[in-house]
Amino acid sequence: MRIEVINTGTELLLGKVVNTHASFLGQELFKLGLRVQRQTTIPDGDEIGAVLKEAFPRSDVILITGGLGPTNDDLTREIVADLLELELHPDQEILDHIETIFRQRGLKQNRSNDRQAMVPDGAVVLPNPNGTAPGLLVSGNVERGIPHLFLLPGPPRELIPMYFSQVKERLVAWAGSEAMAPLWKNFRIYGVGESTLATKLEPLLGEIEGLELGYCARLGEVDLRLIGSPEAVEKAAEIIRRNYRRQIMTESEDPIEKVIVELLSKAGETVSTAESCTGGLIASTVTDASGSSAVFQQGYVTYSNESKSGILGVPAELIEENGAVSDPVVRAMAEGCLRVSGADHAIAVSGIAGPTGGSKEKPVGTVYLGVAGKNHPVFSGRYFFPGDRSGFKLRTVRLALDHLRQRLQGFPLDS
Amino acid sequence: MRIEVINTGTELLLGKVVNTHASFLGQELFKLGLRVQRQTTIPDGDEIGAVLKEAFPRSDVILITGGLGPTNDDLTREIVADLLELELHPDQEILDHIETIFRQRGLKQNRSNDRQAMVPDGAVVLPNPNGTAPGLLVSGNVERGIPHLFLLPGPPRELIPMYFSQVKERLVAWAGSEAMAPLWKNFRIYGVGESTLATKLEPLLGEIEGLELGYCARLGEVDLRLIGSPEAVEKAAEIIRRNYRRQIMTESEDPIEKVIVELLSKAGETVSTAESCTGGLIASTVTDASGSSAVFQQGYVTYSNESKSGILGVPAELIEENGAVSDPVVRAMAEGCLRVSGADHAIAVSGIAGPTGGSKEKPVGTVYLGVAGKNHPVFSGRYFFPGDRSGFKLRTVRLALDHLRQRLQGFPLDS
Repeated sequence: MRIEVINTGTELLLGKVVNTHASFLGQELFKLGLRVQRQTTIPDGDEIGAVLKEAFPRSDVILITGGLGPTNDDLTREIVADLLELELHPDQEILDHIETIFRQRGLKQNRSNDRQAMVPDGAVVLPNPNGTAPGLLVSGNVERGIPHLFLLPGPPRELIPMYFSQVKERLVAWAGSEAMAPLWKNFRIYGVGESTLATKLEPLLGEIEGLELGYCARLGEVDLRLIGSPEAVEKAAEIIRRNYRRQIMTESEDPIEKVIVELLSKAGETVSTAESCTGGLIASTVTDASGSSAVFQQGYVTYSNESKSGILGVPAELIEENGAVSDPVVRAMAEGCLRVSGADHAIAVSGIAGPTGGSKEKPVGTVYLGVAGKNHPVFSGRYFFPGDRSGFKLRTVRLALDHLRQRLQGFPLDS
Repeated sequence: MRIEVINTGTELLLGKVVNTHASFLGQELFKLGLRVQRQTTIPDGDEIGAVLKEAFPRSDVILITGGLGPTNDDLTREIVADLLELELHPDQEILDHIETIFRQRGLKQNRSNDRQAMVPDGAVVLPNPNGTAPGLLVSGNVERGIPHLFLLPGPPRELIPMYFSQVKERLVAWAGSEAMAPLWKNFRIYGVGESTLATKLEPLLGEIEGLELGYCARLGEVDLRLIGSPEAVEKAAEIIRRNYRRQIMTESEDPIEKVIVELLSKAGETVSTAESCTGGLIASTVTDASGSSAVFQQGYVTYSNESKSGILGVPAELIEENGAVSDPVVRAMAEGCLRVSGADHAIAVSGIAGPTGGSKEKPVGTVYLGVAGKNHPVFSGRYFFPGDRSGFKLRTVRLALDHLRQRLQGFPLDS
């Protein structure tokens, strides 16, 4: 099945927004055993007509994103109707949905949104619970050389759920036997570099026939993707488990916070956090996982020295002597957090996110981690994540949560 | 000058890698007053030939990335030469450069790299200090309908420096007077829907000659982009300021946290946060801004009822009577946060992020916001952001921070 993706959006071509739709759709189709043959980005406006005409003879399915909004450069709906000579008619259900959304959000509705309720004759309306503009499926016609057209909304928060609820199953049905998902398995590994992993594993896995290996490194994690027959994948998985027992964060694509919340729930335990340089991002990340309210006890964002002392009981002299970014202070933060919150586990971090505040001894990017637990010795360590502020925060969050993961899985943390 | 970008790379279409080249080039060209008219991604291999032939009549310049490497699916060089009927010859300087790089890296050279030293007759070699494959410029021929072709390496750390050292100046020279940076201005507006904005502004701005309007909506914010002559942009800006004095978050592309930190710094004031449903994301967002350590006093993530009472002093009966997600509780959280932290301002939120925990009266997506300040009445309000958990959190963060922005700018918040 020949599939193309067309992204409309002037902001994509101006580089204001990175095109994450293209990679999202590519990834998801791959999981179904399908591939995107070509991806094209064009500005908002009427160029979509010319691009579609070119793509028709090359495609069985075209996924179009964007151009369904209420402003006058959103023209996808109208141009597709025009191209296929379909009349547009207003759809009462969509009109009602738009009215409900405006009412729920306490906003005054205005008539320019009514355009979003226009549907080309014969098109299937794809409901959009996350926005006003529904998607549309205009079925293809093999004799006329017209592929199936999915018209999908531009905002990722609307597109992604709509892909899963409205697009995926239809693609699977059309592709038939072609859409047999290749057997694949993901290992998410923390604390081993991509090239180290490759150097070690490739000689070990190289002899497994028909095995395809893929790597994707990000913020200290590496996703190691195995594709092949069930036997090949299982054989490779065994070798990876044998070599990286401790470093395997999960044998899935689950984010670390989901892993942590599941481990804590299973153990019936709770965690609290005391954050300086991450400013609350550890707490926020843990609570991104559904079910976290049962295991997340309390979060403290103790940016100032006074709050480290006042709230967590870190002795002022300790800060005075060692500095707020130091091993003794982060240990005291973790112990104080455990005591004050009454949780079973406590994570504390203190570091220098930059761009200012660094010194020769403790340059920007330096961070101390402390992990305390009711039945565990306090662990602490010093790490270095140079780079920009936001990368520093994200890496520190992963570092902290992965240490808690190791402890919860019974691996002793060595100070 | 009509410019297209063609990215080759199977990993881009599989979604393993996000296409940051497209946004990089879009941004840089825009700074020169130039635009990418179309961007296309195709797999590694020989499809580049067909895509180029299609693009020739539409373009004056084509920027091609990838396909210059040593493996046998890197075919851009050969296909371009074939298409334009140019002979390839080996270039001794490139051969020497490749040898040096291998020696420097302590690697054994293998002959597959020699292909990277082949140059089509008449092409300009664009040196690549960061990799083995040089870029190539194949000059166009107006009479034969052939645009200028830049063949650029795929890895970002090779492409980006090469753009600045080899591509940019040539584009400026070719574009001549066209390459004057256009005057443009961004308004970031909060709390007005894209469609409402368009309905109101388009009749008012429609008569300004040569003004181009662009919208990009995201999480309650809308970026309104004005492009045109200095007079047109200033005329439009005046109209926007007159109509949306209060709703203009910033006349720039700065994120809300930067705006907040600047306003607090200027006033010499501080803020603390008490978060339930956002789990620390408000604190984390504020502290994303450089300079926040001087103005961010303290953050509390009070997920449980006990911590709302124990830390913020919210009376247990108040929670009992009204529920943790309620107007009286969020007011008490804000007041408690102000008192306990000693900050000048306090933000509190309590809501139902979902997917569970909703009721008929308070469905998933319901959130209460409280804003307290030393010299201000307590403000509180109820809002509704249905959708997924992470969207709910992001919208609530923006809601909270924008209310603080309004208060800091002297707009009274009305309960």
